[in-house]
Amino acid sequence: MQCNTIDYERMFHPKRIAILGVSLEGVGLGNGFLLALQAMGYEGEIFPVNPRGGTFAGLNILSKVEDIPGEIDFAIIAVAARMVPEALEACRKKGAAGAEIISSGFSEVGTSEGIALEQEIRDIASRGIRVIGPNCFGIYCPKSGLTFMPGPDLSRESGPVAFLSQSGGMASDFANTGKWMGLRFSKVVSLGNGADLRETDFLKYLGDDPETRVIAMYVEGIRDGDDFFRTAKSVAKKKPIVVYKGGLSKAGQRAVVSHTASMGGSRTVWPAILKQVNAVQVQDMQEMAQASLAFSVLPERVFQGVSVMGGGGALGIAACDAAESFGIEVPLFSSDLKARIEDCLPKPGSSGGNPVDVMNPFVSNKALKEVLRHAATDERIDLQIVISLLYHYKVLAILRCKSVAAVTPFSELADVVGDVAKETGKPIAVVLPNTRRGMGDMDVVEMLAQARQLLIERGIPVFDEIRDVFRAIAHVNSYYGKRGARDE
Amino acid sequence: MQCNTIDYERMFHPKRIAILGVSLEGVGLGNGFLLALQAMGYEGEIFPVNPRGGTFAGLNILSKVEDIPGEIDFAIIAVAARMVPEALEACRKKGAAGAEIISSGFSEVGTSEGIALEQEIRDIASRGIRVIGPNCFGIYCPKSGLTFMPGPDLSRESGPVAFLSQSGGMASDFANTGKWMGLRFSKVVSLGNGADLRETDFLKYLGDDPETRVIAMYVEGIRDGDDFFRTAKSVAKKKPIVVYKGGLSKAGQRAVVSHTASMGGSRTVWPAILKQVNAVQVQDMQEMAQASLAFSVLPERVFQGVSVMGGGGALGIAACDAAESFGIEVPLFSSDLKARIEDCLPKPGSSGGNPVDVMNPFVSNKALKEVLRHAATDERIDLQIVISLLYHYKVLAILRCKSVAAVTPFSELADVVGDVAKETGKPIAVVLPNTRRGMGDMDVVEMLAQARQLLIERGIPVFDEIRDVFRAIAHVNSYYGKRGARDE
Repeated sequence: MQCNTIDYERMFHPKRIAILGVSLEGVGLGNGFLLALQAMGYEGEIFPVNPRGGTFAGLNILSKVEDIPGEIDFAIIAVAARMVPEALEACRKKGAAGAEIISSGFSEVGTSEGIALEQEIRDIASRGIRVIGPNCFGIYCPKSGLTFMPGPDLSRESGPVAFLSQSGGMASDFANTGKWMGLRFSKVVSLGNGADLRETDFLKYLGDDPETRVIAMYVEGIRDGDDFFRTAKSVAKKKPIVVYKGGLSKAGQRAVVSHTASMGGSRTVWPAILKQVNAVQVQDMQEMAQASLAFSVLPERVFQGVSVMGGGGALGIAACDAAESFGIEVPLFSSDLKARIEDCLPKPGSSGGNPVDVMNPFVSNKALKEVLRHAATDERIDLQIVISLLYHYKVLAILRCKSVAAVTPFSELADVVGDVAKETGKPIAVVLPNTRRGMGDMDVVEMLAQARQLLIERGIPVFDEIRDVFRAIAHVNSYYGKRGARDE
Repeated sequence: MQCNTIDYERMFHPKRIAILGVSLEGVGLGNGFLLALQAMGYEGEIFPVNPRGGTFAGLNILSKVEDIPGEIDFAIIAVAARMVPEALEACRKKGAAGAEIISSGFSEVGTSEGIALEQEIRDIASRGIRVIGPNCFGIYCPKSGLTFMPGPDLSRESGPVAFLSQSGGMASDFANTGKWMGLRFSKVVSLGNGADLRETDFLKYLGDDPETRVIAMYVEGIRDGDDFFRTAKSVAKKKPIVVYKGGLSKAGQRAVVSHTASMGGSRTVWPAILKQVNAVQVQDMQEMAQASLAFSVLPERVFQGVSVMGGGGALGIAACDAAESFGIEVPLFSSDLKARIEDCLPKPGSSGGNPVDVMNPFVSNKALKEVLRHAATDERIDLQIVISLLYHYKVLAILRCKSVAAVTPFSELADVVGDVAKETGKPIAVVLPNTRRGMGDMDVVEMLAQARQLLIERGIPVFDEIRDVFRAIAHVNSYYGKRGARDE
């Protein structure tokens, strides 16, 4: 029975943290946490604890939790499994609102000892300290500087995306992926075994969290299906929930059991229920990140008609094929609009219908700007997609013996796209594929990373592949299509 | 009527090439070709032609084709559309076996002038010079050093993959993608409008070409459906044909018309016919490249059961889900084998069933080697998949103030995987995802490019994402499953 309240504020933004399991040799999990918090510039106080005392990373190691002066808000527990209950109890007595237990060796190993230890954790939690984990990576909260274990260099910039994950690796991967992809996070929680606080608790909290506009989840299994789906239904009326359910296959379910010991649920039931509550189901981490990006950057509406611009006719064809498969239209421009667009482009080779074939990847950003402005005048166009093959500039760089960054007008591209999106009020998404990724093309990879960053700073979502952008928009359309219909 | 024979040998391996359309200012398409051929180290003779004469890139420009001493084997024609027939006729008289016409402005623009010019090309071709294009990028042949326009730095290493493309951009993209992905090419042809030589001609040739073991194709439309499918059926009995058909959507078909002016064919007909002739249909360039890689590297057989190793339980679950969706099995190991595998791995956290959770990305390559050897003893395992999260070493690099390359044992990984694959006779595929791609992580990107290169050198196919490897293997299974059944 959990009768104590949950002080999320003190858990996500703790001012005083104890770290239990900081070894003198500097090789323990706790040491990694301490260094990561310092690297993140966490501004609160950190109290490392180890019975043997000593110093580490410029801090005195206290020999027991009781020696910490005053109360603590939060604890990071990374001691051996059998020591965890005692450690947790000490933190509870020190007034901690919560603790994340990183240690593994509990119900997930399936031994009676592990299961009993996890029960002990639950018992202590019911007496006033809320627990994340065990067998988890903890919390990442950019605003407070709290970070999980493999995260000394995550972004400190906050944003609208929250992520709940039953896999620590997935939590860390998603946070890192978000960093370069332009996802900014409110809170990321690695739930681990969920002995105390679980997916539904955080889902409820995030549903009301004003800092969170999009909730992404990696789920392997849920404890209380009814409660989860009731909560999801209510939260999905307020904000999109993007769900990646792992372990829907037979072998996958078997692997779920040895990973987080949770019950999986079947391949047929999940999609049906998620659809019913208007949650967005995705098939892997890339799709989850791309959908979250689209939700976090685009206005809250359906995008039925899109324009597509790219150089190389096959691109436009690929875009049309992808659009149709995701229920999005690429409406043909009127002959008048087509002619106006073709006036801006080199001939022969270009084509001004929709998709617009700008003929080659070297068409000027000035021309592109005019094309985008013209295309935006068609009222059937809700969003524009620019496919930019910047990697082709490598050939120019080689032939002219200059650096790729010097010959590629990527910063002008970012300005043009950013300006037109603002000016026309119609969002623009950019696709930046890269066919050059070998050892001889690291300059191209770096230039594209810079280009992406400039675009992101202007609020433009960037995708690697043509299909990706349409799939992400389709998720946005599906969610707002249903939610809108319900609110009317 | 085409009555002349096709001397492919002289077209793919020309000793003497004329380039028509080399401008004195050095900005023409022909100049790009000339520089690209020089950069590729093409060993034959090049004769640039321009009525005004002069010099470029160290070569004398001849004022007309007739001034070239002796015969030529091949011509690259990049003059304005209306000058093309005369240029082509001059090359024919000079004894060229073939010419690639880069110029655009023919049937693809839809004007009566363009259509008439294309007919003139066809007429000249019927008198003894075979034509690739117009509106194409030409031929890339690593063995001879022939390269298409945006290809001054393509690989000179030959290999088993041929590519026929109705899009020049796609041809160039595929050749560049192959370079870092480990695809090595026999011949790549950008077909353009296909006024003379078309998809079916080259398909017939490649079917018998001993240097080609895999044929990839990007098709927008075909001229003679019966001939194409009869040819594909016969060739597919000898070697796999991987087909990406663009323009299957309504808007896509519309775009096909303005791109290569070819008839598209419907979304329902193509998959059925491709299936019937046992060609492999893919949905985009990435899938085409990955399937081609699997076909070119793996033995010619079906891979029914696979083992999966990775650190982080969610990976194994994702792999099982992907495997099932592609009809591949991840059979559970016997408890005896499971125990032997677990003996090699750190505890708690690891799991020796199949998938094998090696617990974290830092497990030693020595342990991984033993695990792979043990897993190979299960006779249900036809292929092993290693998911290696090398990017996690970045955190170690940060905490230890060292370079990523110095702390990441990627070269040992390549050795272990290469050795075990050889020793056990069971192929291994590696998945190397990367969640770190931002400006601060270029060192990780570079290290992974190096790791990929070392693996490729050892004959190991590498994929970016878990789903990719299963999808590629599923294509291999589908092809050899049917072909085997037919040969029995």
